[in-house]
Parts: sequence; C-alpha cells; structure tokens
Amino acid sequence: MRIRVGIIGYGYWGPNLLRNVAASAECEVVALAERRPEARARATAALPGLRTYDDAEAVLALPDVDAVVIATPVATHFPLARQALLAGKHVLVEKPMCATVAEGEELVAIAARTGRTLMVDHTFLFTGAVQKIKETVESGRLGKICYFDSMRVNLGLFQTDVNCLWDLAPHDLSIIDHLMDDEVVGVDVTGYCHVNPTLPDMVYLTLHYAHDAVAHFNLSWMSPMKVRRFVIGGTRQMLIWDDLDQDQKIRIYDSGIEFRPEDQRATIVPDYRAGDIYSPRISRREALAGVVNHFAGVIRGNQAPMMDGSRGLKVVRVLEQAQQVLDRNLAEVAARRRAAQ
Amino acid sequence: MRIRVGIIGYGYWGPNLLRNVAASAECEVVALAERRPEARARATAALPGLRTYDDAEAVLALPDVDAVVIATPVATHFPLARQALLAGKHVLVEKPMCATVAEGEELVAIAARTGRTLMVDHTFLFTGAVQKIKETVESGRLGKICYFDSMRVNLGLFQTDVNCLWDLAPHDLSIIDHLMDDEVVGVDVTGYCHVNPTLPDMVYLTLHYAHDAVAHFNLSWMSPMKVRRFVIGGTRQMLIWDDLDQDQKIRIYDSGIEFRPEDQRATIVPDYRAGDIYSPRISRREALAGVVNHFAGVIRGNQAPMMDGSRGLKVVRVLEQAQQVLDRNLAEVAARRRAAQ
Amino acid sequence: MRIRVGIIGYGYWGPNLLRNVAASAECEVVALAERRPEARARATAALPGLRTYDDAEAVLALPDVDAVVIATPVATHFPLARQALLAGKHVLVEKPMCATVAEGEELVAIAARTGRTLMVDHTFLFTGAVQKIKETVESGRLGKICYFDSMRVNLGLFQTDVNCLWDLAPHDLSIIDHLMDDEVVGVDVTGYCHVNPTLPDMVYLTLHYAHDAVAHFNLSWMSPMKVRRFVIGGTRQMLIWDDLDQDQKIRIYDSGIEFRPEDQRATIVPDYRAGDIYSPRISRREALAGVVNHFAGVIRGNQAPMMDGSRGLKVVRVLEQAQQVLDRNLAEVAARRRAAQ
Amino acid sequence: MRIRVGIIGYGYWGPNLLRNVAASAECEVVALAERRPEARARATAALPGLRTYDDAEAVLALPDVDAVVIATPVATHFPLARQALLAGKHVLVEKPMCATVAEGEELVAIAARTGRTLMVDHTFLFTGAVQKIKETVESGRLGKICYFDSMRVNLGLFQTDVNCLWDLAPHDLSIIDHLMDDEVVGVDVTGYCHVNPTLPDMVYLTLHYAHDAVAHFNLSWMSPMKVRRFVIGGTRQMLIWDDLDQDQKIRIYDSGIEFRPEDQRATIVPDYRAGDIYSPRISRREALAGVVNHFAGVIRGNQAPMMDGSRGLKVVRVLEQAQQVLDRNLAEVAARRRAAQ
Repeated sequence: MRIRVGIIGYGYWGPNLLRNVAASAECEVVALAERRPEARARATAALPGLRTYDDAEAVLALPDVDAVVIATPVATHFPLARQALLAGKHVLVEKPMCATVAEGEELVAIAARTGRTLMVDHTFLFTGAVQKIKETVESGRLGKICYFDSMRVNLGLFQTDVNCLWDLAPHDLSIIDHLMDDEVVGVDVTGYCHVNPTLPDMVYLTLHYAHDAVAHFNLSWMSPMKVRRFVIGGTRQMLIWDDLDQDQKIRIYDSGIEFRPEDQRATIVPDYRAGDIYSPRISRREALAGVVNHFAGVIRGNQAPMMDGSRGLKVVRVLEQAQQVLDRNLAEVAARRRAAQ
Repeated sequence: MRIRVGIIGYGYWGPNLLRNVAASAECEVVALAERRPEARARATAALPGLRTYDDAEAVLALPDVDAVVIATPVATHFPLARQALLAGKHVLVEKPMCATVAEGEELVAIAARTGRTLMVDHTFLFTGAVQKIKETVESGRLGKICYFDSMRVNLGLFQTDVNCLWDLAPHDLSIIDHLMDDEVVGVDVTGYCHVNPTLPDMVYLTLHYAHDAVAHFNLSWMSPMKVRRFVIGGTRQMLIWDDLDQDQKIRIYDSGIEFRPEDQRATIVPDYRAGDIYSPRISRREALAGVVNHFAGVIRGNQAPMMDGSRGLKVVRVLEQAQQVLDRNLAEVAARRRAAQ
Repeated sequence: MRIRVGIIGYGYWGPNLLRNVAASAECEVVALAERRPEARARATAALPGLRTYDDAEAVLALPDVDAVVIATPVATHFPLARQALLAGKHVLVEKPMCATVAEGEELVAIAARTGRTLMVDHTFLFTGAVQKIKETVESGRLGKICYFDSMRVNLGLFQTDVNCLWDLAPHDLSIIDHLMDDEVVGVDVTGYCHVNPTLPDMVYLTLHYAHDAVAHFNLSWMSPMKVRRFVIGGTRQMLIWDDLDQDQKIRIYDSGIEFRPEDQRATIVPDYRAGDIYSPRISRREALAGVVNHFAGVIRGNQAPMMDGSRGLKVVRVLEQAQQVLDRNLAEVAARRRAAQ
Repeated sequence: MRIRVGIIGYGYWGPNLLRNVAASAECEVVALAERRPEARARATAALPGLRTYDDAEAVLALPDVDAVVIATPVATHFPLARQALLAGKHVLVEKPMCATVAEGEELVAIAARTGRTLMVDHTFLFTGAVQKIKETVESGRLGKICYFDSMRVNLGLFQTDVNCLWDLAPHDLSIIDHLMDDEVVGVDVTGYCHVNPTLPDMVYLTLHYAHDAVAHFNLSWMSPMKVRRFVIGGTRQMLIWDDLDQDQKIRIYDSGIEFRPEDQRATIVPDYRAGDIYSPRISRREALAGVVNHFAGVIRGNQAPMMDGSRGLKVVRVLEQAQQVLDRNLAEVAARRRAAQ
C-alpha cells in the first residue's frame, strides 16, 4: 500500500513537492493545506481531484494521512512538525528544520518517543553532483579534506522570514555534514545589511572543524551574477563543483602541493603539482524524486536515514551559534561606525 | 636630464622593473645591486653595460644615483628605504612598503624631512582595468559603494618571507584605498595553514569601513584554479572585474534592488532590477610603465602622488591590525581543537 | 469567443504546444489526435477532460475546431495541412512547413484561396534573444549586415524522418529571413554521414545572398559539446548570440575595421577598432506563448503575419535547393573515395 | 660544434626566432639580414654583437653560416630557400613553405640533390597541446577519426601578402597531416571579401579525405571574438582543443554514439553515450624551442624529420587546389549577384 501523504503549504517549493510525491510509486498525495485560495486552485489544477484545506490542522487531523510534508515559513516548522508527530504522522520538513536548537531537540525527542520518521528536506544531498562528490570523497582520492570554500551568491530572492544566513547556509552545512562527520569548534562570521538592518543580506561565515578542516561560506543576495561554486581541498586532489556549469559540474584537479616533513616546513618552499583534470558525468535525475523515495524507504524501514532529525538539528545548531556571533559582530561594527563618525 | 635610477634586488619582479625603467624616456638605469651572481649575469644580459654590485650599500653610496627601486624581501624594505632616503635618494619600494606600522611611520617622516619622494609600487593602480574602475566609480554610475568582494586565489606561489595575507591583500587594499578614501573601523579575519603552522596559506579577511561599506577578501595559495575576481556593489549598479577574462575584464551590471524607505524595509520585500551589462574596452598598456612614469612625474613635481608613503602606510596599518587579529584567532582555534580532541 | 484548437500529434514538442495553447487567453484546446495510446494518456493527464482521438481525420472533421496545430513527422505536414485548410481550419504547422517546394506552393495557394491562416511555427522568432536582435538590426547600429555565422551542434538527437540539414537549418534560415529580406543566389553545401549513409548528420552550408551578404552554418548531431552560437557581422558593429549563455545571451561588439576607399583596399592594411561590449537584457518570456498569441492575432486579423506560408515556403525552397547540391556533392565525394582506394 | 645560423627577415615572428635560436644549446645566431634599419637595430639590441646585413644575399654568401631561417613574405620563400640550398645551407622556412606546388616540388628536389635539410616551421606541431593530441590519437582512445572541425577566427591581423586561407589554414593542415597520414580527395571552399575583393578575409573550407574522414575549417579575420577551437570526432571518443582556455586546453569526451550494424542504420535511431570528460595537463614549454631543437636534430641526423619539405609541399598542394576552387566559386557567386541585381 502506498504511503498517504498530506502536504502543508503550497508556496515556491510546493509545486515541486506535489509533483514528485504524486509521481512516486511509493506515495500518493491525499490532501493539501494552504491558506491562499489562489494557491489552492493552482494545486487542484496540477492534481485534479486533490482534497484541499485552508488550514493545516484539518490535514493533521485526517486519519487517512500517514505522513506530511511541511513547506511553510520557517517559524511554523516547529509547531506543525510537533503536532504532526504527536498525531502519529511521519514528517518531512523543509530546511532549516526549525528556528532554534531547543525546538530541534524537542522534535528529535518526540520523533524518538513516537517512533515516527522525522526527516529534513536537504534536497541537495540527492543531486547527482553531491552523490558524485560523496562517492569521490569516500574513495579517498582527495586524501584528507583540508578545506571547503563555498560561494553561493545571486541577486535576490529576498526572504521575509529568514536572513541570508538561514536561507543559504543550510545547503552547504548539510552537504559538508554529509561528506565529513566532524564537529564545529569555532565560528567566525560577519556580514552586511543593505536593506533591512536586522536581516543581513550578505554573510561571510567560517567554520573551524575539530579534525583540522576549515569551511568558508560567501553567502549573498546582493551579487549581480549568480555563482554556485563549492571547492574541496584535499591533501591529494582538489574538487570544484560549479552547479551552473552545464557541461562540467564537477572537476577534480590532480593538483596539490608536496608536503614536507614538519621540521622543514618553515624554511623550504613546497613543490607544486599541477596535473590532469577529470570531470565525471553527473546524473540528471531530479533530486526531489530521490528525497521522496528516501522518505518512503526510511518510513518502511528499508533505508538508513541520511538526513533525519539529528542531522537537521546539527545544522540548526551551527546556524544558531553563527547567528549569535553574527549579531554580536554586527552590533560591534555598528558601534564602531557610530564612534568613527 | 633623465633621472638616474639604481635597482636594488633582481628577483621575480626585477626583470620587469629593469625593462620598464630602462624603456622610460624619463629615467635611465645606472646601477643594480643583487647578491646572487647568476641573477646579476641575467641583468647584464638584459641591459648590456649595466654596472652591477653584490651589495645594496654600494649602489646607495653612488653619487650619480638619483633614485632607487627597492625590490628585495619585505623585511629589508625598511632599512634599505631608510638608508636611501637619508642618502638623498628618491625611493620606489615594492609592496608592502614595510613590515610594521612603526617602520612605515619612520619612513614617511624621513621622506617629509628630506623632501625626497617615497613611493610604493602598487602596480595594479596603473592597470587599464583599475583605471577604468576608478573612472567608473568617480562618474557616480555605481551610486554609493556598499561592498567590495575579492577572490584572489591560485595554487602557489608560496613566499618564504611573508604569509598569504601580506602577499595578496596589499593589491586589494591599495585598490580600495584608491577608489574610496575611507577608514577601516573593524577587522574580522581568520585563515588556515596547510604547510607551515605559522604562515597561513588561506586567509578570509573582512574590513568594515566607517562610512558603511564592507570589503571581503578570499585569499589563498591553495586553490586548484586561479581566480582574480573583484566585485563592487553600488546602490545603483554593480561591477565585476575578472582579471583573467581576456574578452571582458570588466562588466558593469545595470542591476540592483530598489531600496524602500527605512520604515518599510522590515516588512516589504524589495524589487529587483536585472538589466543590461556593459563591458568597456580596457587599455592593454603595461602597468609598470605607468608606475615608472608616475615616479618620475612626482619626483619632478609634475604629478600629484597617487601611492606615496602615507598611502603605503595605510595599507601596512591594515595588514598589521589584521595580522594581530589573525594570530589571536588562529591561536584560539588551535586551543579549541586541542580541547575537542 | 476563444479560438477552438485541435492538436495533431503529441510527440517531443506536443506537451509544450498543449500547455501554451491551453494557457492562452485567446485559444482553448478542444481536441487532440495521436496514434499512440500512452501519449494520449499523457495528454489527458496534462489537460483533464481533453477529447482525444487516435486519428487526425477525426479531429479535422470536428465542426467545433477552428484551427489545428500540426506537430507530426515532416512527411505528413503537407497532407494534413492541406486537408485542414480545405476543411476550413486555420493551420499552425511545425517547421519545416513541408518536404518539398511543390507541396509548399500548393499549401500557400490553398490558404490564399480558402482565406485561412497558414502559419509555420518558427518558434525562435518569438524568443527574447531574436526579438532583441531584430530590434538591434533595425536600429542600424550594426551597419549593413555582411555575414551570418551559425554553429548549431550537439550530440543527437537523431531524427528518423529528416536529416541534420532539415532538422537544424530551418531555425537559422527563418531567423535570417526575419532579419534581412534578401534572396539566396548561391548555395554551397557538403556534409558527412556517420550513421546512415543517406542521412547526413553533419552539414556545412554556405548561402550567398543577392545583396552581398554571406551566411555560413555548421550543423551537427555529432558534436561532443552543445553549441548554439550565431554571429552577425556588420559594417559598424558585430553581434554574438550565444543561446546557452545564461548571463549574456547577446553581446554587441563595438569592434570592426575601418574601411578604406575602394582604390586603396589592395595595398593598405585596414585599421582595427576593438571597442566596448554591450550585452542587453533579454526577456525570458516563453517563446511559444508568443507564437500562440501571434497565431490568434493573425487569425483575428489584428496582427500582420511574421511567419506565414510564404515565409515557410522560402525556407523550404532553400532546404530543397541545398539538399540537391548536397546529394550531388556527397555522391561526388563518394565516387572520389572509391577511386582513391 | 654548434650549428651556425643566419636569420633572413626580422618582422613579426623574427624576435621569437632570434631568441629561440640564440637560446638553443645546439645553435648559435651568427648573422641576420633585414632591409629595415630600425628592425636591424632592434635585433642588435636583443642580441648585442650580432652581425646584421641589409641584404639576404650577403648572409647566404657567408661561409660560416651552416643553416638559415627564412622569415620573410611568402612570395620570397622560394627564391631565398632555393638559393640557400644551392649555397649548401640547411633551411628552416616559415609556413607556408612557398606560393605554388611547382616551387615546392623544385625545393624538395634541390634539397634531395644537395643532401641539405629543408624544413617548414609548422610551429604548432611542437606545442604541448598538439603533442598531447598526437599521443591521444596514437593511443587509439578516440577510435577511428571521423571528422575535424576547426574554428580559427579573430579580428585581424590582415596580411598584405596572403589571404585568410593561406594565412590561417596552414596551421590546421599541418596538424591534421601530422595526426593522420591521409590524402585529400575532395575540396569544397567558399568565402567572403569585406575589404579587398581579391583577398578573401573569411573562408569556409571542407576537405574530404580518402579514408572516410572530413575536415571543416572556419577561418576568418573578421570575427569580433577570437576563437581557436579544434574538434576531433572519433568513433569512440571526441576531443576538443580550445587553445585560449588557460585551464583546460584539451578536453576528451567519453561521449559518442553506439553504431549499429549497417543494415539497421536506416531504420533504428542510434543510442547516445554522454560520459566523463578528461582534461590532461599540457606542457607549457615554448613550441619554438622545440622547433629549433628538431631542426638541429634533423641536420645532425639524430631525429627523423616531422615537417620536412615533402610535408610542407603537401600543405601547399592543398592550399593551391583550394585557392583554385575558391577563385572559381567566388567568381561564380559574383556573377550570380550581378545577375540578380
């Protein structure tokens, strides 16, 4: 029997979710909740016969709904996911999982207690590019990972419910966590607010990991040109993922430096090695189809969870910590600016 | 009469300096000091008849030398420039001008006292690209500058006398100072050391300026791919300078966001404007020829100095401050890593 | 009242046609003919309630169909369009309009006689890029057009009903005819057959126009990399349209050569002018929506036809002539190969 | 003992020749002939002490000259090379070797009779890129070569002594001959004259080879953007050489089509295979140094000649044939244009 899914929210991402859940052999869409009548009409046009409601409560109360997909503003993730889990539904929630660590901890605890699946839609993990990167990292061909360098910038889209950090960083954070199971021990972050002085629209974030790697994120809603560029530096090889390159999304550089024994490092310049470049073919399968399939597989107990509540919580933990540092940093900068004028 | 120039040091940049000074209608090269005999031989081959010395002192003592160009390791800039100024020579010194603010202040004071020209070779200011950017900024077409975002990364070249910050940041710092005469009120910086634990080879630097602009620098000797990308975000238009793009080094985007009155910013999403792109033709004239010409013009009193000692000192002041923050930051990260393991 | 449209054929392009006709405020889709049951099922899923038939005749016989869109293999365009026009229907047929000049002449004549609209779906004319190019050419900014140079290559898709010439050249031919109303006076063409010795999969076509312009087409189904690059050389400026460039689809180069008086041309090398580049913003509106709107506008007599039967015939005339030259050329090459071995 | 070389002509390419011959361990430059005094002065500045003459005869008469490098306008290649060979000198002549097949046959015959080395400077054969391509082709990884597709376009430089065909095609012709020893059995060529009606500045050339390969050349002095793109299509893999790509000059695509048995080709659509891309590292060694070294090696009998007179003649043979076809073609087009007006 197929998993009967209710969808909560039909905004920007809603049509993609609806289409992919409906197309899945494992699931069927049985209900949808959305406040705006015109959005409900679009949903019915896309899936004729779909039962729609103007209220999430109504869907959560349906006995023939096994699982819900929550695609609403971030502030509502926690109450909706909580209520759904308590009503015995499995939950797939959009990223970020929730707005605070406390919320996340409660959701994880409820999911454990109720035995329901709690999953976060970190869609990128199911792209052909990230799957190929994961495979490359696990093959050991890059050596030990030393750094990540991500540039994720474009013009807009401004969000009203989150700032640029909470909007863009979850992608990179979930990918790095997927590639390398390590702990953040240091967070440096600063940013800039063009529009709204309380919502940074440019953020520069650096994370220091326990086992000697660093990750840098250049995140912006204010760049004239869209860039999606993610670099991994390993001790043996390096990898560049340019998500906008249609021909060569991933390039693996057989380049690096020849490390010297510790005692020579201060005095001897290392040798460079600039080698071949290899660009593997990337699957073009739609990532969201994989997400839906994985959600069903985990619910049925056939697949080990790749992005469950604990993973989603780890991302929120970094975001919360980064936000605190960012707030402090921006306040300090503002004070200095006032002092200088 | 032409200005009689002595060149101190004939390393990586030496041949370019020698060629451009020799080619200048305003100058002639009369002597060169370099310790390594094989480098002296190359200099003589390049300019037959050139008097060479194995010792800088010898050139500084020559009465027929009016000016010296100092192209030696950074640590020697101060003593050599100081001695040259005291010997009554004009000085053009490679970037960064010196290794500490104290040194820089002393050089500026001596130059003022002796009435000699002290100039720093921030070559980029004389490239066709930076000249066009300066012209664009001054035309007002970008509006008020909000941010700079620079990515200056490649594989190598490791320097032995400076770290990645002192090697790469002077370019961007001098360019920004040239474009926008503002003061730094906040410095955030962190980095990573692959090779030598005391010489960061990747640095992430953010500067906050008094009049509400931010500058971010991604500097690295460890990138598999060379990138020289410098973005300026203005309130009206934005500019991208990609120095490796042979066809379109500069692109000006008639894109931006429509700012709202302050009181609406928190609640209303701004409008985007994605417009035409304009790529002006850039002069291909060799920048160093312009530097040499400017040095002569300033010595003769015909040109106002664009990169004199006080400008060079301003760059060193930011570098010194950034280095202090960086040292503290890296020590803290190291301590946290030890604690986490 | 909306124009009641029947769609004949639901293959590769069918879903786009169905979606755009259905979305048009001027039209409604009332019937669809398609032989393959599974394709009919997909059409009904896309537009619930759509009447479908397994036979084009059935749709052509429907009294409540005002117009038909013919999206079937090229060989069937003529009989279907002919029958539709004779049944009093307006016709929008996919490119190329038909397989021979004789067919095309008959269709044009029938359309004239019956007073029905005969239109060819040269979709590219309604892209933002071609609209901007048309505007640029008409502004005179390029000067007199001297050459077109088109590279339209990729890996696949092989067609079974047409060769690479008939598949790819109609795009460029219709665009050039749209930009410049001139006559072809000379055709040079050759090609290569990897797969099927009677269906060239690479074609090199050069057209000489009466008023001193040349057009070259590099067409291929066998290129490892997709290229869609169309260059216009004018006496004053030049334009490059790279349809795969997301950021700068069109670039206008203020470059050229300074022409000399005729009598100096043999002896004096002309001067070059390499100037600024300007890249106008391109509308992203879906072209096919514009086609459907234009079809309706012409039927209603509100718009002058841009790609009627006579225009479609002009394209077929060049294709037929080119095919004859190509056949002769390939036969000659084959004979020489046999002789050489 | 080093080979004593005289250089005839010191124009555009002269400084590179002088520098590389002078730097070679196998050769020394002993004399240079050049009519223009200012060019002679530049040569002496580059190599102090060089004996210069205003007349080629003088150098050809020097008994202490073993070999000459001829870098003069094409029309003078034959008389100079002929005289040099007859004077017992070895000859390295710039491309194209001469202006007619008759000249080329005579040079080859004289070289054979005198036992002197006659070599053509097809410099590209010694670039890292072509060396890597040669290695790739010989490894069999591409399978059988089916096509070459070369785009060699830019704005200028107009030549006064040759047209665009003779200027640009020799590069591609010598490379193809180097990669694949086959005979041309068919030549299609047309072009366009912007400036001088007798000197085409755009040429489209297609060569059909005996063993079932085709080569297409798009050559132009009138393109707003410089392109140097050379594609090789093999039955197994395909290769793109983009000489302006600093990061990935060569890309090998593991893409292709799955060929079917002959009898199925007409009816069944072939399968595509889009695979990985591999970009080998290319040596950056200066090609001309390799040319000079090869010249010396062949003179000394240590290396088998790669681009001797017979190879150079093969290139001229194709050029001459192409020029005849081109002349006929352009005359025919002109006649049709006149008839149409």
